[in-house]
Amino acid sequence: MDDTTRGEVLKRLAYIEGHLTGVRKMIEQDTYCVDVLKQTYAVRRAIEKMESKMLSGHVRGCVVDGIKSGDDGVLDELVDLYELANS
Amino acid sequence: MDDTTRGEVLKRLAYIEGHLTGVRKMIEQDTYCVDVLKQTYAVRRAIEKMESKMLSGHVRGCVVDGIKSGDDGVLDELVDLYELANS
Amino acid sequence: MDDTTRGEVLKRLAYIEGHLTGVRKMIEQDTYCVDVLKQTYAVRRAIEKMESKMLSGHVRGCVVDGIKSGDDGVLDELVDLYELANS
Amino acid sequence: MDDTTRGEVLKRLAYIEGHLTGVRKMIEQDTYCVDVLKQTYAVRRAIEKMESKMLSGHVRGCVVDGIKSGDDGVLDELVDLYELANS
Repeated sequence: MDDTTRGEVLKRLAYIEGHLTGVRKMIEQDTYCVDVLKQTYAVRRAIEKMESKMLSGHVRGCVVDGIKSGDDGVLDELVDLYELANS
Repeated sequence: MDDTTRGEVLKRLAYIEGHLTGVRKMIEQDTYCVDVLKQTYAVRRAIEKMESKMLSGHVRGCVVDGIKSGDDGVLDELVDLYELANS
Repeated sequence: MDDTTRGEVLKRLAYIEGHLTGVRKMIEQDTYCVDVLKQTYAVRRAIEKMESKMLSGHVRGCVVDGIKSGDDGVLDELVDLYELANS
Repeated sequence: MDDTTRGEVLKRLAYIEGHLTGVRKMIEQDTYCVDVLKQTYAVRRAIEKMESKMLSGHVRGCVVDGIKSGDDGVLDELVDLYELANS
């Protein structure tokens, strides 16, 4: 991961960790389940955005390098990731 | 949320928080992106399982009580939750 | 399924079938893959909306009836559906 | 799309169309909603598998060609596709 991507990803991760701390407090204070669930959905979406950042860096870095050097393994990995992301 | 559900949900949440700490270390130690992504997918699946636990408690508690007392609002909420979960 | 829900669901299904026929034509005419993929994503979202309609009818019909008659099986099914929808 | 991929994709599409015809019959014959929903979930998963086939062909074809000829547009598209797939 290049430094810019890593910086952005860690920033998003800190936000996600903070969000989960908020979820923990909601559960401990017996907040209405439906409101807690809406927050955990938001956490999952935030994780997806972080994944998108990482994937973008990966595609522009390792995948481009791999293709240029004739390493087809990066392509298999990329398709596997797509399948895994939704499973 | 009843006490049993809350206990189980908090246990799963602790696991998720630990998993994210592991993800943070992987990123800081510059682990290969694809391996980090596989872990964040696993985190999202763990959150979905935690949601399922909460939903189960909600359905057996608030939804049953709501229907028995003629409060249709819980039904609208339930359908909204299904839509939101995937959006 | 009550008649109103069935009517709406069949209408959405007809739209989805038409959309897939369009996808078939795109593939046969060698449309750019990325454009085909965007259409299949839209088809999946249309199916999710149709599911939401069905679920809404189910919750307001069978689930309410089940709870009122003391049949807890509808609750297990409901939680299973939630898990299956995302798997 | 190369011929082999197109052949496989059209085969999967035919299966999906047949599956939806089955769903239509289930709805017309007033099958229990929960059983219909399980089938529409299966249809969505079948569409995802078809998408994965198309993406695999796209990555191995257009993306490789694009990168080799210095066209970065294919990379932006690829990241967008991952985001769109889940939205």
